[in-house]
Amino acid sequence: MGRRSDHSRAELEELILSTGSTLIAETGLAGFSAREVARRIGYSIGTIHNVFGTADRLVAAINTRSFKDWAASLRERLNAVGPDGDRIAALVDGYFGFAREHPHLWTAIFDHRLPPDGGLTEADETGRALLTRIVVEEIARAVGCEVDDEVAALSRSLIATVHGHCSFAISGAWALMGEAAPEAAALARVREALSAWDVCLTQS
Amino acid sequence: MGRRSDHSRAELEELILSTGSTLIAETGLAGFSAREVARRIGYSIGTIHNVFGTADRLVAAINTRSFKDWAASLRERLNAVGPDGDRIAALVDGYFGFAREHPHLWTAIFDHRLPPDGGLTEADETGRALLTRIVVEEIARAVGCEVDDEVAALSRSLIATVHGHCSFAISGAWALMGEAAPEAAALARVREALSAWDVCLTQS
Repeated sequence: MGRRSDHSRAELEELILSTGSTLIAETGLAGFSAREVARRIGYSIGTIHNVFGTADRLVAAINTRSFKDWAASLRERLNAVGPDGDRIAALVDGYFGFAREHPHLWTAIFDHRLPPDGGLTEADETGRALLTRIVVEEIARAVGCEVDDEVAALSRSLIATVHGHCSFAISGAWALMGEAAPEAAALARVREALSAWDVCLTQS
Repeated sequence: MGRRSDHSRAELEELILSTGSTLIAETGLAGFSAREVARRIGYSIGTIHNVFGTADRLVAAINTRSFKDWAASLRERLNAVGPDGDRIAALVDGYFGFAREHPHLWTAIFDHRLPPDGGLTEADETGRALLTRIVVEEIARAVGCEVDDEVAALSRSLIATVHGHCSFAISGAWALMGEAAPEAAALARVREALSAWDVCLTQS
């Protein structure tokens, strides 16, 4: 158990974030409370408010941390397949993989709504943009194009495509519909879109 | 304000469902309580438990009602474009349309998780299957195939594709990513998949 004097502000921030992340991973967003995080680290709720502001801001920071971990695990999978492997399959697998390994953390990312007056910080936005950037680079590579607005728009749309399949898988909606292979379906849709978009490869 | 003797059980069921639906549409799932529904209709909370069981079962029944309304509005749009119109565009528009017109009801469908021991009733499942059935019929028509397992699997995957785009649109994730036209992107992805799947049309 720590006490105020034991930690620098940066250490305290890390302690709150990692403890909060563990709590959401255990109980889901519904079971999260800043008070329980305070109890687990042996500080008062006031300390958490001092460091993160509202509980909503703390959840946003935890979700940003999840995004960063997700991006790191995606990067690892891509490194594992190498430049000549099936990088698109690795991308889809990486999207599903994080959700399957950390269903509560993944669900919290999409279930949490910030209040209208409490937008994301610049650090949140930078941390969350990592995942999209990895996808944009891979899609540009797959269709043989430079990264431009069109490739970025296609990439966002493919993220949404895979997200829809993954979200039905995690929520159990697929199981209700009798679907056994959501990830294979997502990959098939992505490949169809990439075939249709092979404009730069065919021009070169 | 009604009282016990004013309503038959069927009338009471309808009154609870419509009042509950209005409450979720106003406040979202987070602001929903069976007690507030009881207050609004002038019955005790015990009456609601008698008719629907737990609050979770009431929410499931309200969500089934939303599914039915959604299917009806989709059917209307399809009827409005007629057999020779752009029925695929009407389908995507109908998916987005319900979500845009009733964001809280739409979000409640996907945010609500039933407890492990409290599955859907058969009436819930029948009511919810209507929407999927409409999509399966339209996709079979678009690719010129009979309805079979493959067409059903493709249809579920296209629902997931559109769902992913719609869910980013409703949650505001698209806006954060700078995407202005999620519905057009969803439609483009669906058309690419249908072109790739035109097997029955080309065989006939």
